[in-house]
Amino acid sequence: MKKIINDTQQIVDEMLNGFVFANAHLVHRISDTAVIARNTAKTGKVGIISGGGSGHEPTHAGFVGDGMLSAAVCGEVFTSPTPDQILAAIEASDEGQGVFMVIKNYSGDVMNFEIAKELASETGIQVDYVIVDDDISVKNSTYTQGRRGVAGTILVHKILGYAAKQGKTLTEIKQLADTLVPSIHTIGVALHAATVPAVGQPGFELPDDEIEFGVGIHGEPGYRREKLTNSRALADELTSKLVDSFGDYTGAYAILVNGMGATPLMEQFIFTNDVHTLLTEKQLTAEFVKVGNFMTSIDMAGLSLTLLKLDKPIYLTALTAPVSTSAWG
Amino acid sequence: MKKIINDTQQIVDEMLNGFVFANAHLVHRISDTAVIARNTAKTGKVGIISGGGSGHEPTHAGFVGDGMLSAAVCGEVFTSPTPDQILAAIEASDEGQGVFMVIKNYSGDVMNFEIAKELASETGIQVDYVIVDDDISVKNSTYTQGRRGVAGTILVHKILGYAAKQGKTLTEIKQLADTLVPSIHTIGVALHAATVPAVGQPGFELPDDEIEFGVGIHGEPGYRREKLTNSRALADELTSKLVDSFGDYTGAYAILVNGMGATPLMEQFIFTNDVHTLLTEKQLTAEFVKVGNFMTSIDMAGLSLTLLKLDKPIYLTALTAPVSTSAWG
Repeated sequence: MKKIINDTQQIVDEMLNGFVFANAHLVHRISDTAVIARNTAKTGKVGIISGGGSGHEPTHAGFVGDGMLSAAVCGEVFTSPTPDQILAAIEASDEGQGVFMVIKNYSGDVMNFEIAKELASETGIQVDYVIVDDDISVKNSTYTQGRRGVAGTILVHKILGYAAKQGKTLTEIKQLADTLVPSIHTIGVALHAATVPAVGQPGFELPDDEIEFGVGIHGEPGYRREKLTNSRALADELTSKLVDSFGDYTGAYAILVNGMGATPLMEQFIFTNDVHTLLTEKQLTAEFVKVGNFMTSIDMAGLSLTLLKLDKPIYLTALTAPVSTSAWG
Repeated sequence: MKKIINDTQQIVDEMLNGFVFANAHLVHRISDTAVIARNTAKTGKVGIISGGGSGHEPTHAGFVGDGMLSAAVCGEVFTSPTPDQILAAIEASDEGQGVFMVIKNYSGDVMNFEIAKELASETGIQVDYVIVDDDISVKNSTYTQGRRGVAGTILVHKILGYAAKQGKTLTEIKQLADTLVPSIHTIGVALHAATVPAVGQPGFELPDDEIEFGVGIHGEPGYRREKLTNSRALADELTSKLVDSFGDYTGAYAILVNGMGATPLMEQFIFTNDVHTLLTEKQLTAEFVKVGNFMTSIDMAGLSLTLLKLDKPIYLTALTAPVSTSAWG
């Protein structure tokens, strides 16, 4: 293992301090916590928070800022944040109108966020949440029942962040989230596994010429291994499965091509070009396209493709609204 | 070699098409060229262009947009763009006040950009340029005489893009550039070499526990190999060398921590935290900090540190001014 780190026990602490040093104009760290909160003044809106294990940078802290997340709670690497940490994020984000939590569907995350909700209710803060389960690769997985929550989660951050900024109530945001989440589907593919620093070796082994479809963002098993032929074939597999998953929907999509950490933009853009060609062949259109490393898996090589059905006008409006975060751009 | 590509001869073409599909609201590709130009209306300002070999994404096309580059010309992977392509970028960027070229110091780039300048002068377009040579690692290198131009180049794009938008003349921009470039120093370090797709294997070999200081963004040799100890020691080597290179300057710096392509943000932020600690120990301050993958070397693992002396107020004003590009954020 060759990594630019110091002590494997201090990774999250040092990373968050580096992150805040780089983004002090946008965010701050709440003392004695692993919570990153935005610097903006409270204006009596609903707070939107998210979080989970670290190792997915820039998720989630990179999406904290005006127009997106109020705060992010950062667990240890690939480990759910504890309820007290989540509670600190809730308390920092409450502006008197309640706090909405965006939770990726992992059993540990769901349990700890739900406990934090209970703790918050004891202090009089209204909390509601949505569980994101956009990964259609496999039905159940290593760390969860049901589908995993992966890269599509950042589209939820963006759209709910917009709704909160527009002054929507907690109830309205819950309704929006419940409609939105089933409209987001993702599939990932891995070329090389991530190495968790404290483990010191890749989470799984792939032969030099093979890829694995459906791998999760913590290296959870996918649904098929095969030889890597080319970008076009890979794009065909992912695009076709995702389009099929939406049945007879023929409207416009938003697209997210997400690099897993070690895959260069060169490859992500070539893949994006193939997705474009395939959609055009299917007479489908994309009205919003985003490409880059957003929901990574440390140094995994690979990428994921997310499609969001743009069947409500607010989705596109929200996706294209300006924000002040370090990672949305 | 396991890469998400199709034909190694079509990499740049497919990548640019994918890039434009993802960023059609900001940029377009000039027909039959590898030039990416911004969509903004011409307003009689000086055009700023840059370019070079591909493989450094998001450089340079990611910095095309309002407030930064007018156009970027994209050569084949690690290969200088040809004069006719550069001329196309000049012609697309001319708004009647001339065009300024930001050239990284590689012999092929310098030669071809100078030829393009001559060709442009024949059509009546005034052109001037600056050669960026921010890499203080080694004096001469594989592809150039003098210092190499590396990640600090994007700070030049940003500051000159701001000056052009403010309506500075070609002469004023040349003067600004000539003062700015010597104020930017960079050193890089590699943990693993990049693989050029058409070559199919890493450009050099590093033992499993070693790093190389001073490696260039095309894998050019650095100045020392040693065992990787930790982030702190690495930050100390780079920070100390860079601070020393500026002699007795004690004012504020702008800092750029640049990932080489395969190094996750987790490591980049830990390194940034160490740089912060070291600067504080030296009683030095940073008034602008940027961290991420900006000037990559395909899938090289490693990073570079850039310091810019903030000894002119316009530098910080320019660095923090809003822009509309896909990669500056």
